Amino acid sequence: MLKLGIVGYGNLGKALVKTVALFPDFELAALFSRRDLSVEKDVSKIFVPYRNILEFNGKIDVLILAWGSAVDLRESAEFLSGHFNTVDSFDMHRDIEKHLKSVGNIAKGSGRLAVVSSGWDPGLMSLARLYFSAFMPTAAVNSFWGKGVSQGHSEALRHVSGVRYAVQYTCPIAKAHSLALAGETVLPTEAHKRVCYVVAESGAEERIEREIREMRGYFSGYETEVHFISESEFFERHTSLCHRGEVIASAKVADERQRATLTLELQSNPLFTAGILLATARAACRLSSEGITGALTLFDIPPKYFYRGDPYSLI
Amino acid sequence: MLKLGIVGYGNLGKALVKTVALFPDFELAALFSRRDLSVEKDVSKIFVPYRNILEFNGKIDVLILAWGSAVDLRESAEFLSGHFNTVDSFDMHRDIEKHLKSVGNIAKGSGRLAVVSSGWDPGLMSLARLYFSAFMPTAAVNSFWGKGVSQGHSEALRHVSGVRYAVQYTCPIAKAHSLALAGETVLPTEAHKRVCYVVAESGAEERIEREIREMRGYFSGYETEVHFISESEFFERHTSLCHRGEVIASAKVADERQRATLTLELQSNPLFTAGILLATARAACRLSSEGITGALTLFDIPPKYFYRGDPYSLI
Repeated sequence: MLKLGIVGYGNLGKALVKTVALFPDFELAALFSRRDLSVEKDVSKIFVPYRNILEFNGKIDVLILAWGSAVDLRESAEFLSGHFNTVDSFDMHRDIEKHLKSVGNIAKGSGRLAVVSSGWDPGLMSLARLYFSAFMPTAAVNSFWGKGVSQGHSEALRHVSGVRYAVQYTCPIAKAHSLALAGETVLPTEAHKRVCYVVAESGAEERIEREIREMRGYFSGYETEVHFISESEFFERHTSLCHRGEVIASAKVADERQRATLTLELQSNPLFTAGILLATARAACRLSSEGITGALTLFDIPPKYFYRGDPYSLI
Repeated sequence: MLKLGIVGYGNLGKALVKTVALFPDFELAALFSRRDLSVEKDVSKIFVPYRNILEFNGKIDVLILAWGSAVDLRESAEFLSGHFNTVDSFDMHRDIEKHLKSVGNIAKGSGRLAVVSSGWDPGLMSLARLYFSAFMPTAAVNSFWGKGVSQGHSEALRHVSGVRYAVQYTCPIAKAHSLALAGETVLPTEAHKRVCYVVAESGAEERIEREIREMRGYFSGYETEVHFISESEFFERHTSLCHRGEVIASAKVADERQRATLTLELQSNPLFTAGILLATARAACRLSSEGITGALTLFDIPPKYFYRGDPYSLI
């Protein structure tokens, strides 16, 4: 049995606790949180205050980091990879290489393995982009997200000072989608609208909206709507965790159209992410037990490492 | 530049010759065929009679085997992996492990690398089945083919004695498709009909039809239609090479539906297969130059090996 630790108990942490039972090779050894979870009946027995995490050094095969990337994840990933094998879902696309390098140096030094930026995007959709691009070198490869709730962008909103609750819907633009099917390359910023619903401290709206619109890697460059709503409207209308994703590769070779599409339809984004992170944690344990150290992405891992059964039955 | 050899000049061999220009790291060094291609203007300069192939030992980085699997591929793969790095598209699903083992033993002995069963299925669709199964362990993962022309099954028909021309359309059954979307597991034999159009020597129809229906790994177990038609009808109506494929993974986790689908829409099946085989040949060259020998499938190869550019731009 692989001993699993989960760090964080937000949407993703909760989804991991629900999903781990589907992975019979894992035993959930500890749930680390800064909040006191000793009164939450489902998890009180596995709760450990985050400040005590180093006491589990040597008692955990792999940690899944389930904090939002914007602030907590970056810092904790570097610290924790000095002591544990880790899996994270770091999702700020343009900072991934930097993250990979900094975590990789620490993990190499500590003899640990970190797998970074797993999940469905980055993650499964990244894999589709890579395979499609390799197999169809002249294809336009476009990614669409939504309509659905982006956990990363919603989390980023919640880190703006004065924001109490917030949700961000990513909405694909129909015209861009048609162009993608026909083999045109569309910029993500031209293919999506970002619609934010925010419950904020009154009086701070103008500053909050400006900070949201300027946020690099999340909102800057996108058509963005910011709607300030009441707390009651938020909890009545905006608690869905559904999402959708699509990678479309479309090419013409010798006058013949070829198209490959990955489509994800998710009633619960965090539950789907949790499954991918757990399979990634399995791969990390196997690779670590073969002596691999440093930081990897899904691009570096042979597919069979993610799967528990006999892979050849699936060829 | 990687020096490429192609073995065989049927539909797939022709598609490889057309597609190799999209892979700028390859130089097409030789096209091996048992037929005399010295009069075919497009390929006369690179044509080499197959019987002379061992003269190219040491002058070719990788061979792509473009013969149909039913008869030629199995024999040639074993022989050639004693002398060359090879890539094949062996597609008899239940014999793949045996093929992997026999080719692997020979390639290990010769210090060569063989990548077997690449293409779109087995190949890209196998990868989707593996990732989906790993990430969604309770999902029903179903594969659909068609409506479209199966190269492997058409080739198998042509190997029946007395068959002059033949084509096989794989047709998904709508009810099975709906069940797959809803998360039910459907047997491939229940999800598809196989419709064959055959131009045959007159008088042999009864035996031919019986041999087709009994062919293990291809038709046995499937609802199969065999239509005998004239040569002129064949060339008027049955020369399309289009195909379609779909892998659907559908699960309910904690009462929330999650669905991942890979869809392939191909006006030319061989042209799409050719792109995948060329990217696989690239991966084979890279792995071989790192000292890897024996036989691998796509499940054993880190995704980044297939891609020529910087993979991190695609995360």
